[in-house]
Amino acid sequence: MTGPIQIIPVHGIGEVVPADDLPTIIHIALKEQDISLIDGDVVVVTQKIVSKAEGRMVDPTTVEPSHMAHMAAAQGHKDAHHYEIVLRESRRVVRMDRRVLITETHHGLICANAGVDESNVGSERLVTLLPVDPDRSASRLRDALCERSNATVAVIISDTFGRPWREGQVNVAIGVAGIDPLADYAGQPDTHGYMMQASNIAVADEMASAAELVMGKVDAVPVAIIRGYNYTPTNASAQKLIRSPERDLFR
Amino acid sequence: MTGPIQIIPVHGIGEVVPADDLPTIIHIALKEQDISLIDGDVVVVTQKIVSKAEGRMVDPTTVEPSHMAHMAAAQGHKDAHHYEIVLRESRRVVRMDRRVLITETHHGLICANAGVDESNVGSERLVTLLPVDPDRSASRLRDALCERSNATVAVIISDTFGRPWREGQVNVAIGVAGIDPLADYAGQPDTHGYMMQASNIAVADEMASAAELVMGKVDAVPVAIIRGYNYTPTNASAQKLIRSPERDLFR
Repeated sequence: MTGPIQIIPVHGIGEVVPADDLPTIIHIALKEQDISLIDGDVVVVTQKIVSKAEGRMVDPTTVEPSHMAHMAAAQGHKDAHHYEIVLRESRRVVRMDRRVLITETHHGLICANAGVDESNVGSERLVTLLPVDPDRSASRLRDALCERSNATVAVIISDTFGRPWREGQVNVAIGVAGIDPLADYAGQPDTHGYMMQASNIAVADEMASAAELVMGKVDAVPVAIIRGYNYTPTNASAQKLIRSPERDLFR
Repeated sequence: MTGPIQIIPVHGIGEVVPADDLPTIIHIALKEQDISLIDGDVVVVTQKIVSKAEGRMVDPTTVEPSHMAHMAAAQGHKDAHHYEIVLRESRRVVRMDRRVLITETHHGLICANAGVDESNVGSERLVTLLPVDPDRSASRLRDALCERSNATVAVIISDTFGRPWREGQVNVAIGVAGIDPLADYAGQPDTHGYMMQASNIAVADEMASAAELVMGKVDAVPVAIIRGYNYTPTNASAQKLIRSPERDLFR
């Protein structure tokens, strides 16, 4: 029988800068809050602090805008330098209309501005890029957190994406380690003994969304622990959440 | 400072049949589990038991399939009777390809098969339809639960939808009462005093997703309580989550 799940915000993380050791920062914040990680905890970390620690930041004035970056700037909300970075982080333009630039990143993620975000490091105006390999980032973070806490935890790296048809953004999983991002209910008998219709639930996205509820924006809570969710630890990739072109009706 | 959030599964609800009094059923299940609703709780209820209680069920053999229903059956996974019901629950076909029929329902929701689901009531093979007005269903449920519990709670009616580009389904909010489904962070200063980029978070969808984590499929947990989420009680509609045609890049 499923028990309750807790979503625990991790406070006091503060500003992360390049070459910071994220596992140490998270470990200290947890200690100060008297939280010990336990087996089965899922640690959700926002992309932004991972990218900052990994030095995935660019000064927009250092890149030369291309023709299409100027076109995007003429129609959009940002300047041509910003859009040039977006285009360089992308392998395909999905939609460019109504002041919005939606692209497919080199990872296969489809989102506004390739996940490139304005950021401030001290007084510098930089932009953050998504991690080069969010699964690898998650995996490294997981190894370090497991070792320090002596517990088997999973890690999800999250970002906030818009979606077609529905208003508002939701947090989704862009990198995972130690947990299957999909839970497959296909073919299990339901409570009446009937075989259920296939359903494949994107639990890593649901956990990223759950974590967002304690993260807020102004509070600066870039890490949350999900405790009590039942799963089998396993190696898997957030690539499983990306629909292949053959299965995608919206190409 | 944000505190932890709990997601509490409500067990023991059992099979719901037409004309069942859902507030009473939920109230009894809560009591048996020694849970008292408190101010600020958000009660997430899956569409299926709401539809069943409201008698939103049809015997597919009683409807006459149209030409297009036969076409859908020739390409899809269900029979023509089933697709006829889907078409009658829809105001627009969004995609019909690769064995999938995605439509826009009369509410404006875009999902596979218009939310029509196979169901079993005893030995009868029926299908469930979405509630006629999920906000009204949520509102009625909310009024009754508030009265019985003497607490100001909110209600979200959820369903499991697929989405473009990403694999797996997630739970989303199709009806709400007592809570704004969107949280607007636009224009608030961040922790460094900079004005933040606009972001509008679909918190009702995130809560529906969080609730799914304790619902599972085989466990038959159609209700979950989200406790500890900070919000201001308000009248709002899940229609706010539906992107208007003018703002939708994917029409």
